[in-house]
Amino acid sequence: MSQTETTAQIRRPQHVRWSEIPIESVTSKFQRQIVVGDRVMVARLTLKKGCIVPRHSHFHEQVSQVQQGALEFRLDGSHLTVQAGEMLCIPPHLPHTVLALEDTICIDTFVPPREDWLNQTDHYLRQTEFES
Amino acid sequence: MSQTETTAQIRRPQHVRWSEIPIESVTSKFQRQIVVGDRVMVARLTLKKGCIVPRHSHFHEQVSQVQQGALEFRLDGSHLTVQAGEMLCIPPHLPHTVLALEDTICIDTFVPPREDWLNQTDHYLRQTEFES
Repeated sequence: MSQTETTAQIRRPQHVRWSEIPIESVTSKFQRQIVVGDRVMVARLTLKKGCIVPRHSHFHEQVSQVQQGALEFRLDGSHLTVQAGEMLCIPPHLPHTVLALEDTICIDTFVPPREDWLNQTDHYLRQTEFES
Repeated sequence: MSQTETTAQIRRPQHVRWSEIPIESVTSKFQRQIVVGDRVMVARLTLKKGCIVPRHSHFHEQVSQVQQGALEFRLDGSHLTVQAGEMLCIPPHLPHTVLALEDTICIDTFVPPREDWLNQTDHYLRQTEFES
């Protein structure tokens, strides 16, 4: 799938209704929708209970806003449970693992946009059909 | 009020519960909470129905996510109503005005962080007690 099929570009003001943004099924437990600007990317992630995002890091700043459900983040030797209505800010380069404790919807913001998500070289996400 | 009293810094992973972030009453109809990183700022805004944010522009990219209520954005000669669950992406330098159609909670993301919000030189927000 090409970038133009899976992302919406911010070149002019863009009113986003998530129901109108293409859904990419990365694995059977992980779907995402992406809106990308010049310096920011916003992704709406749908994770089924038990989905694990393997340990990874990136130079991008990340803000994860849980809208429904709950995610467990494992980072810095600690476990944090982020509930609906809460947010986790992850500085650049910090390795983290994510486990969906429930069926979850999360809005992830990355600065700058993640090229690996745009050009689909995000192999860490695809290496397994994540199971808990 | 100093920056340290009104903002939370992202220097390490930060689990944000909005109930724990200081609330700044900018006007009688406009409150905000701010979390700031190196390259991104996230603000939770509470606008009472009838609150108007006067026409302004900035070089920052902006993403406004309405969580409750509804906002009318006036920009580019058009009016857009952004409802709960929807998002508006505003590119740099585009003048915009905002009217709260209902009591509203909105998460605004700015890249880079807005210095005028941090050092409170955001006079456009404070010049009136906004009334519709």
